[in-house]
Amino acid sequence: MKLPKGFLASGVEAGIGKKRPDLALLVAEGGANAAAVFTRNRFLAAPVVVSKAALRRSGGRVRAVVVNSGCANAVTGAAGLAAARAVQRRAAGLLGCPAREVFVASTGVIGVLLPDEKIRARLPDAVARLSAGGLAAASRAILTTDAGPKVAQAAYSWNGRRGRVVGFAKGAGMIHPDMATMLAFVTTDAPAAPAALRSILRSAVGESFNAISVDGDTSTNDTVLLLASGTLGGPGIAAAEEAPELARAVAEVCRRLAWMIVRDGEGATRVMDVEITGAASEREARLAAHAVATSPLVKTALHGGDPNWGRILAAIGRSGARVSTRRVSLKAGPVVLVESGAPTAYREAAAAKVFARERVPITADLGVGSARARLLAADLGPAYVSLNADYRS
Amino acid sequence: MKLPKGFLASGVEAGIGKKRPDLALLVAEGGANAAAVFTRNRFLAAPVVVSKAALRRSGGRVRAVVVNSGCANAVTGAAGLAAARAVQRRAAGLLGCPAREVFVASTGVIGVLLPDEKIRARLPDAVARLSAGGLAAASRAILTTDAGPKVAQAAYSWNGRRGRVVGFAKGAGMIHPDMATMLAFVTTDAPAAPAALRSILRSAVGESFNAISVDGDTSTNDTVLLLASGTLGGPGIAAAEEAPELARAVAEVCRRLAWMIVRDGEGATRVMDVEITGAASEREARLAAHAVATSPLVKTALHGGDPNWGRILAAIGRSGARVSTRRVSLKAGPVVLVESGAPTAYREAAAAKVFARERVPITADLGVGSARARLLAADLGPAYVSLNADYRS
Repeated sequence: MKLPKGFLASGVEAGIGKKRPDLALLVAEGGANAAAVFTRNRFLAAPVVVSKAALRRSGGRVRAVVVNSGCANAVTGAAGLAAARAVQRRAAGLLGCPAREVFVASTGVIGVLLPDEKIRARLPDAVARLSAGGLAAASRAILTTDAGPKVAQAAYSWNGRRGRVVGFAKGAGMIHPDMATMLAFVTTDAPAAPAALRSILRSAVGESFNAISVDGDTSTNDTVLLLASGTLGGPGIAAAEEAPELARAVAEVCRRLAWMIVRDGEGATRVMDVEITGAASEREARLAAHAVATSPLVKTALHGGDPNWGRILAAIGRSGARVSTRRVSLKAGPVVLVESGAPTAYREAAAAKVFARERVPITADLGVGSARARLLAADLGPAYVSLNADYRS
Repeated sequence: MKLPKGFLASGVEAGIGKKRPDLALLVAEGGANAAAVFTRNRFLAAPVVVSKAALRRSGGRVRAVVVNSGCANAVTGAAGLAAARAVQRRAAGLLGCPAREVFVASTGVIGVLLPDEKIRARLPDAVARLSAGGLAAASRAILTTDAGPKVAQAAYSWNGRRGRVVGFAKGAGMIHPDMATMLAFVTTDAPAAPAALRSILRSAVGESFNAISVDGDTSTNDTVLLLASGTLGGPGIAAAEEAPELARAVAEVCRRLAWMIVRDGEGATRVMDVEITGAASEREARLAAHAVATSPLVKTALHGGDPNWGRILAAIGRSGARVSTRRVSLKAGPVVLVESGAPTAYREAAAAKVFARERVPITADLGVGSARARLLAADLGPAYVSLNADYRS
């Protein structure tokens, strides 16, 4: 798969952690308009602090993105900020752009200072290797223990022309110790203004990366960046409403990458698609979905292929969401397990068949309103525990 | 261990679930004043609904407690309520007291109707076997997959006499499928009024059963009941403040039972003692403690004996509690891992030694206030997953 016009990428080995490609470079030849969504964790990693500030100062313009794996550069104080800025300056110098147009991102061990000299030394080679086909190398260099690269694309039309959206990501959670960061980079050739991109990205993230749960932990480094080179041409897109096709394509790429992240959770064997309906408010629907998606008892039952609905209702019952114990209903796929607050005479074998699927649809209607929420969540198997209980060294 | 004066107990086999003692009876010969704390889960099990109403109607008087394991009688609708009431009436008839003075509690599979006829048939034998030494049999009959009975006692003095507090409990969470209920029954000979008992119990539960976390799930049946027979004599205790020694003894028994529950979590190999200090409010301190205690990444690191502090800070950072990233500090036992927001030059071996203990003290100071909270939490090992992923049947 190639990047949209106007983008080049490369991936090289900088020797940050283990011996593997660990430095990715993504460049918008003529610059790109940008929008980003960052982690809400209070411990912002140094690259998040630096990239947030850069984006603000550049008015949403990005020329290059430098991503490393192997070191998160989080909880590293002033030295960490200095290291992230040193990488930023070096890339800017090589590409001939202001430092504020260089976006940096890191993933890896928390509490270890970024070895910025290693990255700076390898950046010239990363620049030399830039190509439209460099997506393969870049999407590989950002991985930690992901099973493989996560790349997705979608098309849209604008002003009679066919444009492209291409994204790549690395997984979050259920991942090797200290590597629990989610990074996603989405590129498009659309001539969209930063304000339009912000609105498009916010709603795409809401129903993709913010609608997945692997283990409930969010990292210090989570970042989603949307870049638009404008190379497609045509009139500029000032607001999201002007280009619903573009918004749909970005959302689709985000949803596909999000699915890959959940499905690829280490130790994960299946994914539940939790849908809460009939809630009093959207906030309460999300509370209930989150309680089900993060309950260790529900997640282990999912792993065992056990349609153990008592655990699902117990999780909803403690979530804080209002629920009518007389009207509540629960379905696994087409099988109605609970109706009007009481178990139905469902066939256990039919329910077990649904729970044996790769994707298990679970729908609970709380019976108190009309709000809804949806969440994809991985199961909890022994492999998750052994992977995450291993000592870091 | 014997029950305080005025109490008798027994345990028999009623054939509710597996072939084992599953029916416990606790009787206050002359009646007892009572206070109870119930689950906050919105799906209240039938016995919880029935016992709440009984306690209200009797004005806090209890003559007998009937507890079964093997069936939670939760999410069983009107039929479940009828079954719980049938057990209540039968016990009242045998003991010659009003039905409202019979407290019922159940633990076991959710969504299965209580086979009340089996319990009613065996109640006469349970009455015939009542004795002061019946604590052993009763404390065994309420268990599900607990490793063994959980019994604790403490002494107090009142009006120059030495009184006793004796409690027994069954574990919550990290327990066999569908058995994730916490039940605790605490008896004393104190001449305390229901209002005094309510206040004493509320504060005791706050720092014991409500300060433990096994897997973050709360059940539909959780119940703690405090009974006072008054057989010690002396002036009546109208308010908690009049008898601080009694309050201390009840709190001690609750704390000991709570520790046994966490330590006995199936698959648990060690317990972390999470203390949050320097928080902006007690609510935020609890949010932070809860995030650490329920984070799968922290719990698996604990299991692996890995002092992986990045995960602890990441959990605090997403908890919603305010934290100063410049002032935050973190300790494992005496080892300072993070100070003023940056890693110290601690010795990895010293930190690993603390994480190898049975009880791992973790203290985080958020650096924004003076509020604090404390929580005991079990680790997350492969045994937890395999126990909970097994199919119910």
